[in-house]
Amino acid sequence: MLTPAILAEFAAAAGRDGLISEENQLQTYECDGLTNFRQVPVAVLLPRTSAEVQKIVRICAAHKIPFVARGAGTGLSGGALPTAGGIVLSFARMNRILDIDLVNQRVTVEPGVINAHVTAAVAGHGYFYAPDPSSQPVCTIGGNVAENAGGAHCLKYGFTVTHVMELEVVLPTGELVTLGAPTLDAPGYDLAGVFVGSEGTLGVATKITLRIVKRPETVRTLIAAFDSVRHAGKAVSDIIAAGMLPSAIEMMDTLCIEAAEAAVHAKYPVCTALLLVELDGPVTEVEAQMVQVRTLCESNSAWEVRLAANDAERLLIWKGRKAAFAAMGRISPNYIVQDGVIPRTALPEVLEEIERMAQAVQLRVANVFHAGDGNLHPLVLYDRTIAGQEDIALDLSYRILHLCVDKGGSITGEHGVGREKQQAMGYMFSEPDLATMQRVRIAFDPAGIANPDKIFPRTKLCGEKTGPYTPHPLETAGVAEFF
Amino acid sequence: MLTPAILAEFAAAAGRDGLISEENQLQTYECDGLTNFRQVPVAVLLPRTSAEVQKIVRICAAHKIPFVARGAGTGLSGGALPTAGGIVLSFARMNRILDIDLVNQRVTVEPGVINAHVTAAVAGHGYFYAPDPSSQPVCTIGGNVAENAGGAHCLKYGFTVTHVMELEVVLPTGELVTLGAPTLDAPGYDLAGVFVGSEGTLGVATKITLRIVKRPETVRTLIAAFDSVRHAGKAVSDIIAAGMLPSAIEMMDTLCIEAAEAAVHAKYPVCTALLLVELDGPVTEVEAQMVQVRTLCESNSAWEVRLAANDAERLLIWKGRKAAFAAMGRISPNYIVQDGVIPRTALPEVLEEIERMAQAVQLRVANVFHAGDGNLHPLVLYDRTIAGQEDIALDLSYRILHLCVDKGGSITGEHGVGREKQQAMGYMFSEPDLATMQRVRIAFDPAGIANPDKIFPRTKLCGEKTGPYTPHPLETAGVAEFF
Repeated sequence: MLTPAILAEFAAAAGRDGLISEENQLQTYECDGLTNFRQVPVAVLLPRTSAEVQKIVRICAAHKIPFVARGAGTGLSGGALPTAGGIVLSFARMNRILDIDLVNQRVTVEPGVINAHVTAAVAGHGYFYAPDPSSQPVCTIGGNVAENAGGAHCLKYGFTVTHVMELEVVLPTGELVTLGAPTLDAPGYDLAGVFVGSEGTLGVATKITLRIVKRPETVRTLIAAFDSVRHAGKAVSDIIAAGMLPSAIEMMDTLCIEAAEAAVHAKYPVCTALLLVELDGPVTEVEAQMVQVRTLCESNSAWEVRLAANDAERLLIWKGRKAAFAAMGRISPNYIVQDGVIPRTALPEVLEEIERMAQAVQLRVANVFHAGDGNLHPLVLYDRTIAGQEDIALDLSYRILHLCVDKGGSITGEHGVGREKQQAMGYMFSEPDLATMQRVRIAFDPAGIANPDKIFPRTKLCGEKTGPYTPHPLETAGVAEFF
Repeated sequence: MLTPAILAEFAAAAGRDGLISEENQLQTYECDGLTNFRQVPVAVLLPRTSAEVQKIVRICAAHKIPFVARGAGTGLSGGALPTAGGIVLSFARMNRILDIDLVNQRVTVEPGVINAHVTAAVAGHGYFYAPDPSSQPVCTIGGNVAENAGGAHCLKYGFTVTHVMELEVVLPTGELVTLGAPTLDAPGYDLAGVFVGSEGTLGVATKITLRIVKRPETVRTLIAAFDSVRHAGKAVSDIIAAGMLPSAIEMMDTLCIEAAEAAVHAKYPVCTALLLVELDGPVTEVEAQMVQVRTLCESNSAWEVRLAANDAERLLIWKGRKAAFAAMGRISPNYIVQDGVIPRTALPEVLEEIERMAQAVQLRVANVFHAGDGNLHPLVLYDRTIAGQEDIALDLSYRILHLCVDKGGSITGEHGVGREKQQAMGYMFSEPDLATMQRVRIAFDPAGIANPDKIFPRTKLCGEKTGPYTPHPLETAGVAEFF
């Protein structure tokens, strides 16, 4: 609980209409897209300007009050979960596009601007903003920066970090700094690069200059049906090895296909592994490469290869893919969305191992993933009403992460570590690696008030033993109710 | 001078043949490609393994001895200049390619591996390592990492940072850590990103995993002659605005053309501004886009447009471009190589302003630059034997940097800050911005022994006044004798 004096300070900083402190209103902010963790904040502040953000953060620093920034609350790893006793800085009112510089291909926005609105603002001039998380119609650029958001098209276009040129940031001390530069390769340390993906632990971005990209002349999408993951995986490797860089290569397994079909009737062939390959660029290039893609799919035993004849068909294919998470609700009462990365070439063996692990505990795992860059999204299906099944599902989902690390991969591709995967960080990184990150964190946030208790393993804080990661009963995984 | 006891420690760490301590041998290491600054190190160590590097750094930490890593010594900003009383860690003996993983498109090397050798090792399989500084045949990957090296083709392929996946690093404390990950978008802070380009101030890379790229199906190069920089600059903007991403767009002015012609007889048309445009990719795409490039050059009044008919002609065009720096020796006894960045669209006005500034002090400035990404290399020509002219040339070169910053650009595109441009950092960044970088530096190097006295302005240390940068008489710019 905040004292009336501190509340008055906050009200003076953000205006009376910029402060929420009533219990029932605060509950809206108790979690993000990861709903297994909930913590009601002690207050929510809605600043309108960088100066107001500075004032609020200075009050936090003076009274050692933790803060977490929040955009649309669509994160899947609990990044925007409040800290006990902490406030939420909502960027709902800082949602202006400040500058559009088409000639230099950049757009400057406030953090509350919705991802899709950036593209909307420049589409008429033939440009778009490339990172496209599935939550694109609602998620904000501030949140994308915090989590280094990806999307189906980051195989070709890169993650958010590739598209952030310059950031205005309020440090946890209340200082206002500029990180990065409006040009390529700024001198000094690449602090814009380290800030993007730091999940709110190094400060709060208040202004972001984004790189926009010229819209390609054409976009073509193909689906190919395979009877084995091994063949589909080989087709992916062959496409990349041929020197092509598709804008997206997605793979879905039978369970996903069935769920997506039930939801949107995308007319997918039902098969063991469905590939979705999208090429964009000049017409001459795309047409020529699409012939190659088709040949490589067929030479890897695809039994149906279908090129979307027009934009309507193309969008329907994508609608099915993007609905895949939510569609799980049609075939399972509950499910956990996981997010791991493996070397592309390890796909077949990892999927076979996941299948073995799932069968051993009598659960089903649906798989949908960005096959081009090896970013897996296993969906662990379970029924919460069956006693003990949630724990088994959680345990399975963590063991899948371990498998990813063991195969030379990573515990998250694009959802972030947040609150969900803190312990898994200890499985992936050595103690000195983590200590180095912690020293950087302290360099930015000596008081430890910027989204504390995120990213890093909490073993030492909690007095738990160090060593290989043992899932804590309370460390529940990403049950996505958002999508 | 090191005590015999410390020398014995170093000899024990690196072996007797891994220690150089004789004055005449040490002089080889007194500077890098920026020869205006010289400082003989107290010893040079030549480790063979990461473990030896750790031992050496621990000795430095115990005795507070500064160290700087050195690859081929081709840097142009004094990054490898020893600190007074400090040692040099030479990576001449850590030059092995450790692993080639074609399927996952990565190569792991020791820091002393020469840039061009990475491509040589994978070329037979159709791959190449993209960053191509002009010093490519001799410079090392360790140095490229320290300076975040670029090259003519980073317009399309990006700088070194885009191609570094994972780093094994010996911290200034002697600890061995891994930064980054072998996959995309590693969780936690992007410390590989902050390390690349940190110019040796955060530690020493001992193992580097690089991303390699599939060699394009074809490469075509065109030159176009313009009678005005404004027209050539407009052609560059039009090419980019048309949605094309050439692998390189270079521009040279009359002085550069004349010098390059004299050196290699590349048969360049003599004109005010010569564009060199290179496209690579699938044959169908390149052929179609080359037609567009030609049209855009002609519609901007190019009076000669010539497409290299074969690889021999193409390589000759590049030979002239890459010889441009060294060729300056044919038209001027001395010259300063500068390195600044401006928004692409500001090219004509910046070049006109540089011309005005040069005329005002009766000096000539030749200009060669990576026009696609606005990276300028003005070459300030002068004669050291004329009393006072070097100072005037240095002052002019610094004022050109200020101009770049004033136009929304940067003080370095690819050569780094090093010893040369420390003061200009204070012109480009605010005090809080620099303080944030310093805190990160201290997080890695609390004792201040890793290449200290580099990057950051030295005003405070020297008791000089803060404020807009005034060139110090000793702060001489990059007189490149390397190229």
